[in-house]
Amino acid sequence: MELMMMTMREIKEYLKTNQTIIIPIGATEEHSDALPLGTDTITAEALAKRLGEVTDRVVGPTINVGNCHSITYGFTGTISISPTTLISYLKDYITSLHYHGFRNFFFVNGHGGNIAPLRCAFDELANTLTNSKFLVSSWWLMEELKELYDNAGHAGRGEVSMILYLNKSLVKSKFLTEEKRPMPKYYVTNDLARKYITVTGIINDTQEGSFELGEKLFNASIEAMAKLLRHLEES
Amino acid sequence: MELMMMTMREIKEYLKTNQTIIIPIGATEEHSDALPLGTDTITAEALAKRLGEVTDRVVGPTINVGNCHSITYGFTGTISISPTTLISYLKDYITSLHYHGFRNFFFVNGHGGNIAPLRCAFDELANTLTNSKFLVSSWWLMEELKELYDNAGHAGRGEVSMILYLNKSLVKSKFLTEEKRPMPKYYVTNDLARKYITVTGIINDTQEGSFELGEKLFNASIEAMAKLLRHLEES
Amino acid sequence: MELMMMTMREIKEYLKTNQTIIIPIGATEEHSDALPLGTDTITAEALAKRLGEVTDRVVGPTINVGNCHSITYGFTGTISISPTTLISYLKDYITSLHYHGFRNFFFVNGHGGNIAPLRCAFDELANTLTNSKFLVSSWWLMEELKELYDNAGHAGRGEVSMILYLNKSLVKSKFLTEEKRPMPKYYVTNDLARKYITVTGIINDTQEGSFELGEKLFNASIEAMAKLLRHLEES
Amino acid sequence: MELMMMTMREIKEYLKTNQTIIIPIGATEEHSDALPLGTDTITAEALAKRLGEVTDRVVGPTINVGNCHSITYGFTGTISISPTTLISYLKDYITSLHYHGFRNFFFVNGHGGNIAPLRCAFDELANTLTNSKFLVSSWWLMEELKELYDNAGHAGRGEVSMILYLNKSLVKSKFLTEEKRPMPKYYVTNDLARKYITVTGIINDTQEGSFELGEKLFNASIEAMAKLLRHLEES
Amino acid sequence: MELMMMTMREIKEYLKTNQTIIIPIGATEEHSDALPLGTDTITAEALAKRLGEVTDRVVGPTINVGNCHSITYGFTGTISISPTTLISYLKDYITSLHYHGFRNFFFVNGHGGNIAPLRCAFDELANTLTNSKFLVSSWWLMEELKELYDNAGHAGRGEVSMILYLNKSLVKSKFLTEEKRPMPKYYVTNDLARKYITVTGIINDTQEGSFELGEKLFNASIEAMAKLLRHLEES
Amino acid sequence: MELMMMTMREIKEYLKTNQTIIIPIGATEEHSDALPLGTDTITAEALAKRLGEVTDRVVGPTINVGNCHSITYGFTGTISISPTTLISYLKDYITSLHYHGFRNFFFVNGHGGNIAPLRCAFDELANTLTNSKFLVSSWWLMEELKELYDNAGHAGRGEVSMILYLNKSLVKSKFLTEEKRPMPKYYVTNDLARKYITVTGIINDTQEGSFELGEKLFNASIEAMAKLLRHLEES
Repeated sequence: MELMMMTMREIKEYLKTNQTIIIPIGATEEHSDALPLGTDTITAEALAKRLGEVTDRVVGPTINVGNCHSITYGFTGTISISPTTLISYLKDYITSLHYHGFRNFFFVNGHGGNIAPLRCAFDELANTLTNSKFLVSSWWLMEELKELYDNAGHAGRGEVSMILYLNKSLVKSKFLTEEKRPMPKYYVTNDLARKYITVTGIINDTQEGSFELGEKLFNASIEAMAKLLRHLEES
Repeated sequence: MELMMMTMREIKEYLKTNQTIIIPIGATEEHSDALPLGTDTITAEALAKRLGEVTDRVVGPTINVGNCHSITYGFTGTISISPTTLISYLKDYITSLHYHGFRNFFFVNGHGGNIAPLRCAFDELANTLTNSKFLVSSWWLMEELKELYDNAGHAGRGEVSMILYLNKSLVKSKFLTEEKRPMPKYYVTNDLARKYITVTGIINDTQEGSFELGEKLFNASIEAMAKLLRHLEES
Repeated sequence: MELMMMTMREIKEYLKTNQTIIIPIGATEEHSDALPLGTDTITAEALAKRLGEVTDRVVGPTINVGNCHSITYGFTGTISISPTTLISYLKDYITSLHYHGFRNFFFVNGHGGNIAPLRCAFDELANTLTNSKFLVSSWWLMEELKELYDNAGHAGRGEVSMILYLNKSLVKSKFLTEEKRPMPKYYVTNDLARKYITVTGIINDTQEGSFELGEKLFNASIEAMAKLLRHLEES
Repeated sequence: MELMMMTMREIKEYLKTNQTIIIPIGATEEHSDALPLGTDTITAEALAKRLGEVTDRVVGPTINVGNCHSITYGFTGTISISPTTLISYLKDYITSLHYHGFRNFFFVNGHGGNIAPLRCAFDELANTLTNSKFLVSSWWLMEELKELYDNAGHAGRGEVSMILYLNKSLVKSKFLTEEKRPMPKYYVTNDLARKYITVTGIINDTQEGSFELGEKLFNASIEAMAKLLRHLEES
Repeated sequence: MELMMMTMREIKEYLKTNQTIIIPIGATEEHSDALPLGTDTITAEALAKRLGEVTDRVVGPTINVGNCHSITYGFTGTISISPTTLISYLKDYITSLHYHGFRNFFFVNGHGGNIAPLRCAFDELANTLTNSKFLVSSWWLMEELKELYDNAGHAGRGEVSMILYLNKSLVKSKFLTEEKRPMPKYYVTNDLARKYITVTGIINDTQEGSFELGEKLFNASIEAMAKLLRHLEES
Repeated sequence: MELMMMTMREIKEYLKTNQTIIIPIGATEEHSDALPLGTDTITAEALAKRLGEVTDRVVGPTINVGNCHSITYGFTGTISISPTTLISYLKDYITSLHYHGFRNFFFVNGHGGNIAPLRCAFDELANTLTNSKFLVSSWWLMEELKELYDNAGHAGRGEVSMILYLNKSLVKSKFLTEEKRPMPKYYVTNDLARKYITVTGIINDTQEGSFELGEKLFNASIEAMAKLLRHLEES
């Protein structure tokens, strides 16, 4: 059930028995020459919709563009909303839904750069809204996927596999490559991104993914997220 | 061609010969009990994608949620980004694309409440960016559709027809109704919205639309927009 | 009756029977070499004061500087408040008056660039204030003046006539000229303003105005505005 | 010479030999039942215009509404722009003029609550603009007027005299009164304003002013300000 | 009693009988080659702690960095928080304490550039908080120290003496010098700071201070502040 | 070496050979009835100063108050700076230092709620500053302390031990207690904090700490941080 496809009346009906909403949030960001710019959004949206189906919960409008202000900003095609703006945006988005009666906000996140702004937004809403819970699930960070994901990097094996599974035609196979190098434990200004982080747009990984791995990652994510959603609602 | 489905390399290639991007912007907003909350976004996105096809231009990520801070904010399901936040959001979105080389920004708009924030964003960018043009086309306001559209209102005949054409299953026919009343020439605070503007969520119109009218509106919009896009690039 | 000329006690008295305030908002902006930089403010203020007289309503302090962030910003003498700042300014201004009991806010606007920020401010106040109405009347856009105004442009026949009528000495006749060229349907960054919009500061018009036309425009404006003000209060 | 009454060409001419602008900034604020709400603005504007005449310098558009967020906010008719908004407003105002070539900014201030926001604005511009000077002259704080002004308070003898001199009809003599009480050295939240500061709107003074005192205060202010302006330009 | 050294339970206990908090606010700012960058903070903190001891009042966490956006920003080591950010910071700081029950806010200020932002913050809180008082005491501006302080300037005799008294080892005596020149009555942009204000980082003073003068200044400050604190609580 | 204790000249000297600064950032936040409100700041500051000593690097002014907008905001004594304000504050702080020549920013963090705002600030600076690196080390999250720290919670064994080691008198032993309960994986609004997270102010832990454990934690932190600092400078 997607909120954008439902009517006002249907949402009113839904809210009588359930106050949960699933919100996909991704990014529009370079993912090497082989993967589409929308990789994070495509993945988050697919996960959120499937999760909505298996749990019978409403899915809110996808947040297509996220915070990519560092590392990838200088790579062609990346669109970024600054953290401060994204915090305001999330606050407005959540506040509207809270006004209508939603209380459990389950974010299906596809992009690392969104985690800090999401946390900041929740903190700023903590004194303003009432009786609400916020949860962020980032598939590549889930305990249950640890072995499968195996520390894959940005635009690496994990994401290649996900996109192969979700929409194979979007993977430009002849440009699959790798960039393996030790990552620093610090952040850098963007003029240093190519020197310290990535030239190809891949962060410390190969791109040896597969449809099968994608399928496994996707299904394991859904299973883990469905469990988290029950945790959100029932604990 | 959708930017989110393309790779960094493909965008670089595109930019060598063309600096235009088409950007769909809609809203998630009550549209009576008969039309989906995503009516404005669904319409804007469909128009933008078709326009991208017929003109061979890149389409950016859809802005799914817009400014609905007045009138419909109090109707279940409406999600609104405040004008000030939306202005910041648009500035960040456009500035990223400008950084990569885009210069012609063609917005396909599905929602009246976005027009003022779009104008404000352009004004704030006018001193900051260079060599760029911004155009907003709102299908229901286009001269070429005047006769066809015939002053239809929010959630009225025009939008019913568009959604019947684009995705018939989203129209809940048994709730089609009408609300006809003289509209004031002023804005009101939201506590007065039902008294002065709308109870059903329809603004001064019937919902007597049709697939055929939708088809005509859609095609006429595409034709007019394609002309505008040439105007943007060539004049 | 001007609020700035009245005492606290007089305003208290006024509010007992009426909650309307008329607010003039203009701009300080180049108007070619022949018209004064304050053209928009002078016109808006004169209209507001006359309207206050004929309707016996209080007139608030004039907003002398508006949003001129695009097109004219680069022309000597233009002062501009950015849209985001102007929105905040309008919200503070209106909120103070609302706090004291005003409920009907009638803006007499002299400048196109203010329309979007005004709308944004009203939207942001729609959930915050209560029981209030906001109306913007821009004389050159009024249906009743359509024939008289005849699509005159910025610093063109219409404004020349208005200033001739209001304060003839401010029109530097020997610099009256014209700049006629097809206007684009898009906005441009300011580095393109002279190329696409105007070199003289006139936007697509001659400056063949007259005292008589000014008088007619002024009087027709007042008549139409007085009607609108009744509409604001009574409907 | 008022900038709003001058043309673009006249400002260009002026800037060839002088980069000074005089800017009146006042307030719209209760001044007891006897003095008009615009007392601070009326005074600042009159001083600025006269100063402009005697020094042959351009006077910018009056800032009619200032920061009255504390003490008087709760008194009918007071309109206040919050400090943060006023800082942004001043930055936009000054930045536009700097862009055109002005370098010496002489503020004629009529209201105490503007002093802190003015200073904050200058500080925020100090790293952004170049080669510029900012001066604030508040007539009632000038060393040269110390004896004449004799510690008069808000809406007290000094302001009564100024308005009697500038526009006698605006003083409602039958409501002239006094409120004398020891003032605290601290600020209070507005719910405590009547308890700690003022009930009548007068701050610790009588209202025993005179036209003659007003004339002296006005002339002494002009003399002192003209000296300050030379200091601004020449030192 | 320092709030940071106390437990939640101890603060609850304190609040049962007293709602006053003393807050030290300073700056990290060049103070010539002879005095430490933390001169203003060191002084404010020492005064606040002693004041807390003699009055048995709680001292809040020190605000180590203040507004130094003008004059000294370009001198090595100065750290500055912009006025607008500092206003937000102060509002958050005070609002938290108000939420817990504090009502009397006594700021011990060590830096001139903080005075305007403090006033702005109080003004913005005046309508939001209730039943509260705010007082700023800047030692070098106190009437009681006028004779002792004798118009000493930034990094001059007064501050040298204070630091000699508080922590002699921080004064690098061999770099003590002087810079005496007439000060302008205006503010300048930072590119003009060395030309109009200071080359050494001293503002119009010698550095002929002494431990004895420091002791006197410190003790006189404490005495005057203790009196002010009683005024805050009892009047 | 503390920047606040050094002179402008000493910082200039330092910058000739080193561009690193260590910045302690903590919080003023309830830590149960047994630990002081400044626990996070006291720890971060002590670690930063020791780190500065062992590495011979400059330590910047301590950021005493952090982001505690969720969970602990409602517990007496907590002072919180909102994430958005903290982001602005950090940007101003870092930008000043960058202006003077610092390029390696090593944050010693004592509080979990600061991690998201720090990341957001770095992201917003990534396009603005150049040639810089930012590193955040939060002692309780360091791999090297994993075994020692053993998943201790807020105000639990780990922090008790740290404060026993750093300043035993600040631990109010008779109020040492425990609160052990399963923690949710979601955030909650503050009205739910006591129901879902903590009643005592301890988050899922006992308070069975010791001086010895504190000493080990402290020393292990310093060792790990010194290694990280070399990584920051040399890799």
